Amino acid sequence: MSKAKFYHAGCPVCTDAETAMLNAIKYEVEVVHLGQDKESIDQAESEGVKSVPALVLDGKVYHINFGAKLDDVRKV
Amino acid sequence: MSKAKFYHAGCPVCTDAETAMLNAIKYEVEVVHLGQDKESIDQAESEGVKSVPALVLDGKVYHINFGAKLDDVRKV
Repeated sequence: MSKAKFYHAGCPVCTDAETAMLNAIKYEVEVVHLGQDKESIDQAESEGVKSVPALVLDGKVYHINFGAKLDDVRKV
Repeated sequence: MSKAKFYHAGCPVCTDAETAMLNAIKYEVEVVHLGQDKESIDQAESEGVKSVPALVLDGKVYHINFGAKLDDVRKV
């Protein structure tokens, strides 16, 4: 069983990618809203996330399209 | 049943994303290697693909990380 985590910040690009990925991926996906859950920004960064939306699969980061830089989410 | 297409150009970023997506996605994925299948570049562009690797799900494009611009694949 693979572990999947989806980081987003509530932006339209994020929401669209979230819907698509949750529908398409066969694993259970943990969804983390970095705009609401600021404490998770450091965790996302340590996993290699540079921008949102991003999907982390088995420890590897897949940036999907581009919504916002992680640094910009931090500043909001 | 959703239709999924994965465009790539054989680069390391593409290959890694391809492996991850083929494993994670529950649909059958058509894989198109644009480096070898030049005729498909126009088709990819018409679907909204700007760079590879890219996953097209139900007609929407999800650029996954960044390997190469479509225009650069065209020139190779």
